[in-house]
Amino acid sequence: MKLATYKDSSRDGQLVVVSRDLSTAHYATGIATRLQQVLDDWNFLSPQLQDLYETLNQGKARHAFPFEPAQCMAPLPRAYQWADGSAFINHVELVRKARNAEVPESFYTDPLMYQGGSDDFMGPCDDIVAADEAWGIDFESEVAVITSDVPMGASPEQALDGIRLLMLANDVSLRNLIPDELAKGFGFVQSKPATAFSPVAVTPDEAGDAWTGGRLHLTLQSTWNGRKVGMCEAGPEMTFSFGQLIAHLCKTRNVRAGSVIGSGTVSNKDWSHGYSCIAEKRAIETIENGAPKTAFMKFGDTIRIEVKGKDGQSLFGAIEQKVVAAR
Amino acid sequence: MKLATYKDSSRDGQLVVVSRDLSTAHYATGIATRLQQVLDDWNFLSPQLQDLYETLNQGKARHAFPFEPAQCMAPLPRAYQWADGSAFINHVELVRKARNAEVPESFYTDPLMYQGGSDDFMGPCDDIVAADEAWGIDFESEVAVITSDVPMGASPEQALDGIRLLMLANDVSLRNLIPDELAKGFGFVQSKPATAFSPVAVTPDEAGDAWTGGRLHLTLQSTWNGRKVGMCEAGPEMTFSFGQLIAHLCKTRNVRAGSVIGSGTVSNKDWSHGYSCIAEKRAIETIENGAPKTAFMKFGDTIRIEVKGKDGQSLFGAIEQKVVAAR
Repeated sequence: MKLATYKDSSRDGQLVVVSRDLSTAHYATGIATRLQQVLDDWNFLSPQLQDLYETLNQGKARHAFPFEPAQCMAPLPRAYQWADGSAFINHVELVRKARNAEVPESFYTDPLMYQGGSDDFMGPCDDIVAADEAWGIDFESEVAVITSDVPMGASPEQALDGIRLLMLANDVSLRNLIPDELAKGFGFVQSKPATAFSPVAVTPDEAGDAWTGGRLHLTLQSTWNGRKVGMCEAGPEMTFSFGQLIAHLCKTRNVRAGSVIGSGTVSNKDWSHGYSCIAEKRAIETIENGAPKTAFMKFGDTIRIEVKGKDGQSLFGAIEQKVVAAR
Repeated sequence: MKLATYKDSSRDGQLVVVSRDLSTAHYATGIATRLQQVLDDWNFLSPQLQDLYETLNQGKARHAFPFEPAQCMAPLPRAYQWADGSAFINHVELVRKARNAEVPESFYTDPLMYQGGSDDFMGPCDDIVAADEAWGIDFESEVAVITSDVPMGASPEQALDGIRLLMLANDVSLRNLIPDELAKGFGFVQSKPATAFSPVAVTPDEAGDAWTGGRLHLTLQSTWNGRKVGMCEAGPEMTFSFGQLIAHLCKTRNVRAGSVIGSGTVSNKDWSHGYSCIAEKRAIETIENGAPKTAFMKFGDTIRIEVKGKDGQSLFGAIEQKVVAAR
């Protein structure tokens, strides 16, 4: 099934069930009003939502209305956890190669992951607000999952069973603030502002056999200012599966229902696939020509991130954002 | 007023109002059931809780019952944000000096802060569960605050106005996992397991004039296995105030209601005050004798963290935890 959260001026919005083709939606009122509620009590509530989803797909839901992604908050407008991996080691290799740094051997067995802010997620069509273009505004097109409870010490296989929903993320990054924060070693605070998510979160069965081994074997499209800059394969080159990422996170603590885990920038060895973040394009330019050529995003720039299923239909709806100056 | 969250087998527990002397409590049912609800709508709900608090203090609340810290979850059992500063630069100086590393000049003007996991906080008397003593289990006695909404770009003064509640934290750390995570530069994931908080969170007025300039000018007591190891002053040597810490956090993004911000390990230049984490004791031993002598916590060890007000009464109740092996 496909779930979204509609804006209603409240902090958590209103849960809606969305039809498979993303054409219609129906309030889940009577079953649950907020997505976190459903994640807290998945086994009881999700079958009821699934029933409504099937009725909606059959065109028989009584109060269905046209689905509008612009009315969406993030599926979870705020979450108790956002932990973002950097599971595509090719991305790490490129960025390091551009600054003549080695990739430590451990990076191939021990995932890179940072704990991010989760109190203020952006909806799929919300503006990216920044005070200064000089911060180096960049998009990062990613796949993300939402978990149930996963106990401390769970194996990657157990962790995989804890995945409830899939979605897309735009992990907006302020590149020029990153070097100083990396040097401090404590992770990202100012260089990772609010993250945006796709209009709908979907249960893994919606991806069919494209969801296998804890990876989404589909093409992630990134379109910057109307130009398709990335057609990256999100599956085969993901060094660490989502099961491995979650197991990494829960080695020393429980992961609780509603945790959001990201893949990191999707990246392919074959550069002809393009890029899922500008930093990677700049790294390639540096490797090839000694210096980056492509500038980061400017106020007014747009970014669209989408994945189509094997049927050619949009799986999650599109993230479509514009960069604007803080007032 | 003083607020706590009682265990009721649910994820968020039940909000209770606690008397000033911590002797009695009263369910806040009828006003709010969860603390996050109150933070989401502070101006409307907090005056009602304040009325109940006054009635309770006068001994006139009808359904008051004896307050038991062991029945408490963390005041916010799960939160949308946990960002922990390292605001006592003396702590940073000691730890670096012990490993012959310089403190960069920027550390005196730009706070160190990491984003932590907030999906699974511990109650004040919950066991610290770890799979392996070899991880180097340590306590960190800290002061923490809970905020209202603080907009992106707020000044330290504006941020200070956004502080709703004060409490204590035990930011449990796995010291032997830290070097590898620090080297990766992405912050702490495995080396910072679940954090514990004091039985009650209090409005700043409860601290009287000890709360000034965004600092709590009281003595933080740490008692390890029944031995008082720390009597550290939490106010004067806090290099960055809570206003500055929050302003650092919200430079590039909004901070939303219910965010929890920590001071980092409380630390004094005068070593006779003792220590608020074992790592600091070991750093001092290394500086004095070339090697650390004090071992980290073992299974069965206990830690008690408390602050007394100027009236000699416990301000937040005590964090009292035992380290136990994961089953």
